[in-house]
Amino acid sequence: MSRLEKILRPKSIAVIGASRKPGSLGKMFLEAVLRMKYTGNIYPVNPNAAEIDGLKAYPSVAALPEKPDIAVILLSYTFVLQSLEELGRAGVQDVIVISAGFKEIGTRGAAREQKLVNLARKYQMNLLGPNCMGVFNTDAPVSFNGTFSPTLPKPGHVAYISQSGALAVAVLELNAHTDLGFSVFVSTGNKADLNDTDALEFLADDENSKVVTLYLESIDRARDFGRACRMLAAKKPVLALKAGRTASGLKAASSHTGALANPDYLTEAFLKQNGVLRLDTLEDLFDAARGFSLQPLPEGPEVAIVTNAGGPGILASDAVERAGLKLARLSKETIKKLQAFLPAEAATGNPVDMIASANDETYGKALEIVLQDAAVKAALLIIVKPPVNTTPAQITAQIASVVRTTSKTVIPVLMAQRDEQAGLEEFAALRLPVYSYPESAAKVLGSMWQYRQIRRRMQNSAAREAAVKSARPLKIRLSGQKQAAQQDVLDLLKTYQISFAPCLISSDLHEIVRFQKKQGGKLVLKTANEEIIHKSDEGLLKLNLKDEASVLSAFEQMDHLLRSRLGREAKPLFMAQKQMPPGLELVLGGKRDAQFGSVVMVGFGGIFIEVLKDVVFRIAPLSEEEALHMLDELRAQALFTGTRGLAPIDKKAFARTIHKFSLLLAEHPEIVEMDLNPLIWSTERHEAVVVDMRATID
Amino acid sequence: MSRLEKILRPKSIAVIGASRKPGSLGKMFLEAVLRMKYTGNIYPVNPNAAEIDGLKAYPSVAALPEKPDIAVILLSYTFVLQSLEELGRAGVQDVIVISAGFKEIGTRGAAREQKLVNLARKYQMNLLGPNCMGVFNTDAPVSFNGTFSPTLPKPGHVAYISQSGALAVAVLELNAHTDLGFSVFVSTGNKADLNDTDALEFLADDENSKVVTLYLESIDRARDFGRACRMLAAKKPVLALKAGRTASGLKAASSHTGALANPDYLTEAFLKQNGVLRLDTLEDLFDAARGFSLQPLPEGPEVAIVTNAGGPGILASDAVERAGLKLARLSKETIKKLQAFLPAEAATGNPVDMIASANDETYGKALEIVLQDAAVKAALLIIVKPPVNTTPAQITAQIASVVRTTSKTVIPVLMAQRDEQAGLEEFAALRLPVYSYPESAAKVLGSMWQYRQIRRRMQNSAAREAAVKSARPLKIRLSGQKQAAQQDVLDLLKTYQISFAPCLISSDLHEIVRFQKKQGGKLVLKTANEEIIHKSDEGLLKLNLKDEASVLSAFEQMDHLLRSRLGREAKPLFMAQKQMPPGLELVLGGKRDAQFGSVVMVGFGGIFIEVLKDVVFRIAPLSEEEALHMLDELRAQALFTGTRGLAPIDKKAFARTIHKFSLLLAEHPEIVEMDLNPLIWSTERHEAVVVDMRATID
Repeated sequence: MSRLEKILRPKSIAVIGASRKPGSLGKMFLEAVLRMKYTGNIYPVNPNAAEIDGLKAYPSVAALPEKPDIAVILLSYTFVLQSLEELGRAGVQDVIVISAGFKEIGTRGAAREQKLVNLARKYQMNLLGPNCMGVFNTDAPVSFNGTFSPTLPKPGHVAYISQSGALAVAVLELNAHTDLGFSVFVSTGNKADLNDTDALEFLADDENSKVVTLYLESIDRARDFGRACRMLAAKKPVLALKAGRTASGLKAASSHTGALANPDYLTEAFLKQNGVLRLDTLEDLFDAARGFSLQPLPEGPEVAIVTNAGGPGILASDAVERAGLKLARLSKETIKKLQAFLPAEAATGNPVDMIASANDETYGKALEIVLQDAAVKAALLIIVKPPVNTTPAQITAQIASVVRTTSKTVIPVLMAQRDEQAGLEEFAALRLPVYSYPESAAKVLGSMWQYRQIRRRMQNSAAREAAVKSARPLKIRLSGQKQAAQQDVLDLLKTYQISFAPCLISSDLHEIVRFQKKQGGKLVLKTANEEIIHKSDEGLLKLNLKDEASVLSAFEQMDHLLRSRLGREAKPLFMAQKQMPPGLELVLGGKRDAQFGSVVMVGFGGIFIEVLKDVVFRIAPLSEEEALHMLDELRAQALFTGTRGLAPIDKKAFARTIHKFSLLLAEHPEIVEMDLNPLIWSTERHEAVVVDMRATID
Repeated sequence: MSRLEKILRPKSIAVIGASRKPGSLGKMFLEAVLRMKYTGNIYPVNPNAAEIDGLKAYPSVAALPEKPDIAVILLSYTFVLQSLEELGRAGVQDVIVISAGFKEIGTRGAAREQKLVNLARKYQMNLLGPNCMGVFNTDAPVSFNGTFSPTLPKPGHVAYISQSGALAVAVLELNAHTDLGFSVFVSTGNKADLNDTDALEFLADDENSKVVTLYLESIDRARDFGRACRMLAAKKPVLALKAGRTASGLKAASSHTGALANPDYLTEAFLKQNGVLRLDTLEDLFDAARGFSLQPLPEGPEVAIVTNAGGPGILASDAVERAGLKLARLSKETIKKLQAFLPAEAATGNPVDMIASANDETYGKALEIVLQDAAVKAALLIIVKPPVNTTPAQITAQIASVVRTTSKTVIPVLMAQRDEQAGLEEFAALRLPVYSYPESAAKVLGSMWQYRQIRRRMQNSAAREAAVKSARPLKIRLSGQKQAAQQDVLDLLKTYQISFAPCLISSDLHEIVRFQKKQGGKLVLKTANEEIIHKSDEGLLKLNLKDEASVLSAFEQMDHLLRSRLGREAKPLFMAQKQMPPGLELVLGGKRDAQFGSVVMVGFGGIFIEVLKDVVFRIAPLSEEEALHMLDELRAQALFTGTRGLAPIDKKAFARTIHKFSLLLAEHPEIVEMDLNPLIWSTERHEAVVVDMRATID
């Protein structure tokens, strides 16, 4: 059971700091509770009042007639700790702290917050806040508005978890006149104890919440949060707006609510692989939420556009393609049926442009015919205020039976919403989310199709969870400079079955010569002294050694260089390696991040990384399938298909290596940084082979 | 004077097809004219009525008491030609044809449209349409609503030119409740005669129009249109939404209004270099128009954010950076002044988060202080419905004097516009465009800053116009296969002072050997027979020829190959060329486009073009400055700064060559295709040098 269970379904509440003073939080909060007609017992606590808003008030928690299910603290920060202590002693374990003046105001506030956390731990409390807006739950049996929002939320099926309380006020205001209805709201505030993960866990079992929206400024306890997102995304859409996308936003977010912000490329990777659909703007977030909460997911990306005006139809066509959808190819039969009743000037391809003379009946017939076409998975229904004698409300009446019986997605674009005949109630009754612009509607439909694919991926991710096996023994031996010994790294790669070009680590020239003879072909000789990072730059890597003489010469040169470089006592160590024929090269990088854990980076080497910054990140571990998605995101991925005279390459083989590398990283948190550079494609072996590597550990 | 002058400022109008029939175009049109209180004479023409809507009706044009300034034809297409003929005979030369049934319905309609055009030419008419929505002009002395729009446009300073009539209806509806006011509207329809260019020419001198918005499905007579855009953009912002951005949209646009659509990458280049600001969506277009029409352009990209809530401030910070703006760095003095009156919990950096307790006075003071800071060029003022006792209307009263006296840009974000206390009238009175979302407001501000830069560029473009000198003589000699002779191409490059690696075209071995000796260093020998396109593939290009012997051997091999390849009669021709040392390589391409004329393409060679499609297009000719912008758009432009061990490169030298090449193309329309590949950087000569080229002509 979620730790937010009681807070979101309280049977009785104590309001610590309830007040009669106009404009005070204590008054606004109590009024908000009453406005939603909360049916549980409400206990205002205020030592200076006997009655507030018609409710009997109590001087202290100790004086209450029963132990309340939860308590809400609205006091000035100077009294919060004392109040929490009292609640703890009284056995109240579920508390919302609305009061501000903690971590968000700097060092002194942070110290105060730590005391708050300590108290909560002492009494095994579930504490939401501080510095938050509270919660609400519009589920009829609960009807608890535990915020001081002046606007009453419309009941519905969209849950909203927000790190900014004010943004929740704005969201309620902005959507007061739309068809957006809310189920649950949680203001996480400073996340001193309860956080987004707890909210997600509650929502996983909350039948009333069908869509989850998140406003995040920071990502906390990333591993738990990620797991909760994956679990939830396998059941219902999780949509997020993550602020702090740019350097400026990041800076602003870090100063607000004392949140510690991650660089955005990691956040992007994290959200993506945990099944969270990231939206670009606040408007996009709730546009999408409305679509998800009212209409079924499309079964495919094929969209039909039905319109009474050409221009908006073209804009919709553009937007459909940009949203990752496509125009459905209507069957000949469909086109024939459309032609049978539409005027000659109408277009019966897709978009179906019924022209301005279309009335309610035209809309009804056209939509019915188009939805009957098996190739069509969703319809965008565009209505420009018709010049002929019909209204949007009349159109809804005509399409009602079709909309009620179809299992396909229907999204109307009404380009005249403020018109007195817009008939918004009629659209709402049909569970049709209305948009003003074709581009917005197409974007929402695109998100819905995207989520359908995410859901499948998340449902399959049980396999992924299992892929993280119990840790294998780590045999890396620390060296003086935090660089792992090459032999140890090599052993580690073997443990994870990551192929390395055949090699020998040795100090013995004769052994190396024997290795060369055994391998045949060309040899690479390089230092294996882990202190040397830039081998080629220091002349400590020699290529194209074909025979004993060249090996001997290279060995002697490098031995001499190494001795002067590392000092008399050091023991020059060599890696002799079979020289791989040229092939497509990738670079794999691993890095430990304080918040996300181990991170994997992949890119093509050389100019692709240096000049184009063409790299993709993910949080380790990741499945082969996810690794394949990573490769799909590389801009230069055409290289895999065999451009420039190279043979096409088995991308999956590369993905397998990335998967194994991610396991290695995830299971060895002592690795600070690790590079496999390059990882080269071997046509002969039909696999990707590591040619050079290094690891920094602590 | 613009050819649209009379149509947009008519002193009297004849309405051919005015009607009493409810729901008919003829009735709706006349009512629309009357609704805006047109003061000129109105002459309904209808053989079956003596009076319509209180106006005396006339049976024919011939029967009118005076020659009307303009005529509007609303008849069914079957009567349009006859009516136009009558108007012509009566000497009416300015006509709007609303009627549909022409090019947009296919071949038969196109033939009918041709007849219409012929008639218009015969009588030297200015004809708008057919298949259009008409025009309006809200300028008080004109007050002409010549559309059948049911919604009356709000007067203002935004001009709108639309290829889709229905979209205009939608735009009026969608903005009926915003602060968007219109000056002039022109529905271009099928553009049989008058088109966007004529509209732009009218707007250049229309004082009442301060912002120009365009909805385009096709770009017609590109050269004239481009020139009109440049001229206008030097004076006022030209904002465009170009439909047909994607393949789907392109297809939909081509079937609608019979428009012929261009591939989007050319349209993108065309709009950019002609100073048109392209917006992504219909919502963005009019969001931007509102900002431009009400507020001054920012003098720099530095923005201050003033807010009463943290979350929206962070979203705004992100959006500011994404829009190409930046957060202003507030001075110490500013911060001190803010700290003096804001609560301790407030943030006084940028964003300035005044927290939820901010009231109208706080807003007034904070905005005043922030705008006094020289580092701040624009302010985003974010208002979340304040929980304290203040309203947006009260806030406007407090900021009024600051807003009225500042020359800086102020854009409010009111996240509660539908609230009864929103005070939208007060914002409008202060000429403040109100947005609901921080992201939208930042995007608008970004466009305004972008236009400020465009305007400067367009004002400087007189030089550019002059750069296109009179055509030089073309000496290209046609060959059998439409490939120009190499010697002719070489001469052409010389004419334009485009450097080519020192070379000799000859069939004479001795001459070639002499050339090699004179040049010294390495020589390249390749075929100069223009029939051979893929020289290396056919073994007809040899590198690294160091001495007479190697030249001799290469010559003989290639001579043999060429004779068998080209047949007995052909004369093998060679180009001997000094081999350039390796350097950064570009590829320049030229191609003739049916609509835009000559087009220039630039990209780095090899993988950058083949794998990454990293290329940029422009329409020829273009100035050095524009060529530099082109290079700035290359994703791999870091190559210019000297990555990968190469020395930094003088990008301007490359730009000079692109400029000259664009002149060459523009002045030689007989060139179908031409490649300079590669164009290689010579450190020694400090310039870009062409190494190989080819041209196809007709």
